[in-house]
Amino acid sequence: MDLRKIHEYFLSHFDKAEMNLSVDCVIFTIQEERLKVLLTTLFPDSGWMLPGGFIYKNEDANTAADRILFERTGVKNIYLQQFKIFSDPNRFSFPTTNPEVELDKFENIDPSQLPDRVISIGYFALVNIESLQLTGGFFEEDTIWADLKEVPKLNYDHNVIIHDAAEALRKELFFRPIAYNLLPEKFTMPELQKMHEIILDRTIERSSFQKRMLKWDIYERLEERREGVAHKRPYLYRFDPDKYREALDQGIRFGI
Amino acid sequence: MDLRKIHEYFLSHFDKAEMNLSVDCVIFTIQEERLKVLLTTLFPDSGWMLPGGFIYKNEDANTAADRILFERTGVKNIYLQQFKIFSDPNRFSFPTTNPEVELDKFENIDPSQLPDRVISIGYFALVNIESLQLTGGFFEEDTIWADLKEVPKLNYDHNVIIHDAAEALRKELFFRPIAYNLLPEKFTMPELQKMHEIILDRTIERSSFQKRMLKWDIYERLEERREGVAHKRPYLYRFDPDKYREALDQGIRFGI
Repeated sequence: MDLRKIHEYFLSHFDKAEMNLSVDCVIFTIQEERLKVLLTTLFPDSGWMLPGGFIYKNEDANTAADRILFERTGVKNIYLQQFKIFSDPNRFSFPTTNPEVELDKFENIDPSQLPDRVISIGYFALVNIESLQLTGGFFEEDTIWADLKEVPKLNYDHNVIIHDAAEALRKELFFRPIAYNLLPEKFTMPELQKMHEIILDRTIERSSFQKRMLKWDIYERLEERREGVAHKRPYLYRFDPDKYREALDQGIRFGI
Repeated sequence: MDLRKIHEYFLSHFDKAEMNLSVDCVIFTIQEERLKVLLTTLFPDSGWMLPGGFIYKNEDANTAADRILFERTGVKNIYLQQFKIFSDPNRFSFPTTNPEVELDKFENIDPSQLPDRVISIGYFALVNIESLQLTGGFFEEDTIWADLKEVPKLNYDHNVIIHDAAEALRKELFFRPIAYNLLPEKFTMPELQKMHEIILDRTIERSSFQKRMLKWDIYERLEERREGVAHKRPYLYRFDPDKYREALDQGIRFGI
């Protein structure tokens, strides 16, 4: 990793970015029945962290999140959901604690112009690992999928951000049918249930799960059934984006 | 209203605040069976807006929200819930559109130091109007409770912020038992149901509502009953903060 590349990146951002405002992206997937999260590293020994970056002055936060995720990992066209901001006055400061990135020694940067604290806006997404293209980003970063239960010690407050993102993801399952994103186009209710169980880290009672899922009326039951699985042959379903939009327009109604 | 007071406020904030980061507070209450929202005005003819202000450099966002709500309305000790950030590049800019606050003409302010855009963090709260002390803030602001269905045209994007806050409030009802905040200490299930119905703007089926509320096991049923109401005498309940904390620790489980 060429340090000049980091200098170049920061210098190019210093004029156009709000240096006190960043975005961090928590990308979840399920691999081998485990909930995993995408980590990246800036250069060898820089430590693991979330893909993140600074918001441009003329950019809204959602656009920034899409751009930054692409710049840092090569991933695009996934739905990133804003979930929380992280604003502890001690969470991040310039120059970074990493001595290799002593920003105040950069030419053209006036240290007094660097903010005391960077506030970060957390985004999360749930993706199908098969459909993701991790081409790498500007820094030719390394990326890994870390098991949510075995995330290493990360830079800054990124362990906290992941913890809070997982909590937001679990809540979101009750409001938006996002778990289908983890599955191929056609899936069975037991497969969808399994995704929920992995995310929620508990078993779910089968009949009440199906009742709730089908109440939303956004899954189309196909004539086909899944063959070659234990027990009886379950029906295949497909997520119906039109019915979903319709339900959203009318307001999906929940429990009470 | 003395314009010098506004000058004083901005000058005092310019050094210690992050001028590209604000907080706006959406305070909901129920009055005469209507969901209402607190609006304020800086000075006559400044237009109605939400109570808001800038985050200090050494302050986390939640602390800023508490401070700002107090500074602008005199209200303190209420639970403010962060729900969304508002970052449209055109949502707010200096100098303000109001000609009475031409910040760039202030002494001691270098207009080039003013940010192009202010990002605002939205907070909401649900309060009992009886227990609220609206003593007014630094600007001796006027405040009104506007019916959510008849909110006037507000400054900046504050109508959008209120719309999104109401949506967040309706979601939150399913995760945190916040509606009891609107009621006196002892209340009946029909009274609690009424609060939900007003917030959700629809009727709720009685038995499934009670079933769901009692499933949370955070309301203590008292021996007393409400007298003098139509139909049979309903039991009184009291919110049990200990059971609530316990449920949160164990993780309140929902529908599925």
